Amino acid sequence: MEPAPRVPVSALPAHAGSRVEIAGWLYNRRSSGKIHFLQVRDGTGVVQAVVGKGDVPPDLFERCETLAQETSLIVRGVVRADARAPLGVEIGADSVEVVQIAEPYPLGKKEHGPDFLLTQRHLWLRSRKPWAVLRVRDSVIRAIRDFFHKEGFLCVDAPVFTPAACEGTTTLFGVDYFDLGKAYLTQSGQLYSEAAAMAHGKVYCFGPVFRAERSKTRRHLTEFWMVEPEAAFYTLNDVMSLAERFLEAVVARTLEERREELKILERDPVPLERVRAPFPRISYDEAVEKIRSAGGAIEWGEDFGSPQETALSASYDRPVMVHRYPAQVKAFYMKRDPSDARVALCVDVLAPEGVGEIIGGSQREDDLEALLGRVREHKLPQEAFEWYLDLRRYGSVPHGGFGLGLERTVGWICGLEHVREAIPFPRMMYRIVP
Amino acid sequence: MEPAPRVPVSALPAHAGSRVEIAGWLYNRRSSGKIHFLQVRDGTGVVQAVVGKGDVPPDLFERCETLAQETSLIVRGVVRADARAPLGVEIGADSVEVVQIAEPYPLGKKEHGPDFLLTQRHLWLRSRKPWAVLRVRDSVIRAIRDFFHKEGFLCVDAPVFTPAACEGTTTLFGVDYFDLGKAYLTQSGQLYSEAAAMAHGKVYCFGPVFRAERSKTRRHLTEFWMVEPEAAFYTLNDVMSLAERFLEAVVARTLEERREELKILERDPVPLERVRAPFPRISYDEAVEKIRSAGGAIEWGEDFGSPQETALSASYDRPVMVHRYPAQVKAFYMKRDPSDARVALCVDVLAPEGVGEIIGGSQREDDLEALLGRVREHKLPQEAFEWYLDLRRYGSVPHGGFGLGLERTVGWICGLEHVREAIPFPRMMYRIVP
Repeated sequence: MEPAPRVPVSALPAHAGSRVEIAGWLYNRRSSGKIHFLQVRDGTGVVQAVVGKGDVPPDLFERCETLAQETSLIVRGVVRADARAPLGVEIGADSVEVVQIAEPYPLGKKEHGPDFLLTQRHLWLRSRKPWAVLRVRDSVIRAIRDFFHKEGFLCVDAPVFTPAACEGTTTLFGVDYFDLGKAYLTQSGQLYSEAAAMAHGKVYCFGPVFRAERSKTRRHLTEFWMVEPEAAFYTLNDVMSLAERFLEAVVARTLEERREELKILERDPVPLERVRAPFPRISYDEAVEKIRSAGGAIEWGEDFGSPQETALSASYDRPVMVHRYPAQVKAFYMKRDPSDARVALCVDVLAPEGVGEIIGGSQREDDLEALLGRVREHKLPQEAFEWYLDLRRYGSVPHGGFGLGLERTVGWICGLEHVREAIPFPRMMYRIVP
Repeated sequence: MEPAPRVPVSALPAHAGSRVEIAGWLYNRRSSGKIHFLQVRDGTGVVQAVVGKGDVPPDLFERCETLAQETSLIVRGVVRADARAPLGVEIGADSVEVVQIAEPYPLGKKEHGPDFLLTQRHLWLRSRKPWAVLRVRDSVIRAIRDFFHKEGFLCVDAPVFTPAACEGTTTLFGVDYFDLGKAYLTQSGQLYSEAAAMAHGKVYCFGPVFRAERSKTRRHLTEFWMVEPEAAFYTLNDVMSLAERFLEAVVARTLEERREELKILERDPVPLERVRAPFPRISYDEAVEKIRSAGGAIEWGEDFGSPQETALSASYDRPVMVHRYPAQVKAFYMKRDPSDARVALCVDVLAPEGVGEIIGGSQREDDLEALLGRVREHKLPQEAFEWYLDLRRYGSVPHGGFGLGLERTVGWICGLEHVREAIPFPRMMYRIVP
């Protein structure tokens, strides 16, 4: 028989009527005595290959009966329309070439506990839901990068090794760094993004960051990816408008590219379709009122915890932006509101459906003396921050930006219970393998 | 006067004849008594603002005389054609608003030593050449990601924290990881990419990797970015073809987007324009012959050092692919050539102009018993590799991929002496600040 072109499963509909070859893994199999139905996955999708008795040599037909799950194989045959198939096509196989017979696969049809699945993460990735999640993640990453490029932001990567902490030192991972003592793994690239913004105007960094928190909630990873845009001459209002455009664009792009994956995840797309600008903007003061009138307990000056964030976001059908928190619960580098020195020019964006904070941003303190005062108040080692203070000595300008955690965002879009499923190989307090 | 729209310097040519506002920093200044020429940079470019006596209030005109370099300011005026200007336009200023008067700027016109410049990296980024390099880097990053997306590769990030080493343990950074003992910072995401390729067919990871090498050459950083594609059902030939298409696309895209930046860097674009497929492919054996006939000393079985790589690449006008090195100098996971067990199915791509290796790739060992043998030969702890061996137990397939170091590539494209200039905040054996 003439050679058949190798085609990805996702491209099969365009080859209806032609003979092709697919290469992948046996995902599932059932037999009716006279026909084997082989579900074959190749990473781009799953297709059913139908092997009829008489379509292949008798010994091969018999062998199909015994093929173990995840056996690798190459199937050849004619692509034909099948209205019942998700792709709209199946393959009438005339050749099944086994590449390797799989050993008995540890991830069967039965339910497995989360710890077992995490230990088998290298295999679990092949299952339908993790597969769909990582495809969504890929879209979110590209949407983020494309958005910033179109908005004129340059990608300027921040370093992972840092000599000092951005926010406190208790949750830092330390590394012995040659003869220079300890280096610390970055928790945020923001201070570096600020330096880069003074060179390029608008920049973003997007890479892994690290938090050594002894925390076991469904919202914590010790290693996660964060994107941090920063722009010169941006005020708090500019930061909020950017965050709004940004989330709208990222969610819209994901809906555009990954409808099928969201279906696999049983994620209702309707709440995502509502993520359209403008988002409601309320002050911390207004938020406190709202929490209280809903029966929640909060004193002015306290930060919001998960229960408060959930209560707040529950009253909106799209992300809500809470601005001007008490300065005392926020980072040293945030600029105070000139009209109320008790509050910082900052914003948290809370995702709907009880997800909570996914973006934290602010206008930065651009006055040297004020920033020096904050460094002292927070008892930070001034020497380590001299380079950062330099940004206020040599052409200081109003500027601001925000940080968005990738895994929380992917978790929200996919409707996941735990952020650990939003990253290929999650790292947590008790999890470092595989 | 009516409010003028804020315009990025790079967009000024489209506003010729209109009154606009630009916000940035004073890059340079000269005066003729009756006119001040202010060079203003805003991150997107540099433009000359011409301030004539009588065009602004007398006190402002006098103040312009004293403005220090890097002073932040907002200039308003009419955009007018000027054939001598790089952008083709200048601004006839009628308003100069000073945001902050800069302190005396440490980076003057005079030459500075590399150590001083690295200590001032947060400010040095504003200088013309570092500015141009990071714009090239941004294009290279986007070109890489767009290429793989178009080729059907999914971005699947590898973890930074790893329990075991990909290639030896002597050059690893260790971290105390809660109660789990030591974790190590990744040197390569490849093993994880292999697992992901079995789930998604074609994947890539692209993130920072770490090498604790006590090395001070112009080609070494302790922290750098690496992109690592991996594809199921890829043979060595597929890997070579991918590397060829990939480099061609990345260089072409950069030339398309960053001609002006390469001019600033005084980089001759002609050698880059020659980076077109097909690239010459020679075996290690042929390479040894070439080195010897050029008078170089090399024994069969030795790896190439910088001098050999330089000699080899000197005879080609584009990247050269050297395949099938002796297995003894290559990593344990590479597949042996079935027709010559002494050599591995691997390829190094050497960039021209004496740059040397920028890509290393291979077909991976897909046979469980052969891979187990290599793990034992290399005295690797088998238990730590069980998850990796699983990929050969459950549907093993031929597969392969490569790694490309981002900074070496940016350094080559920009024509830099040292890779430390190809990353925003370089980390080296003696450098962890700022």
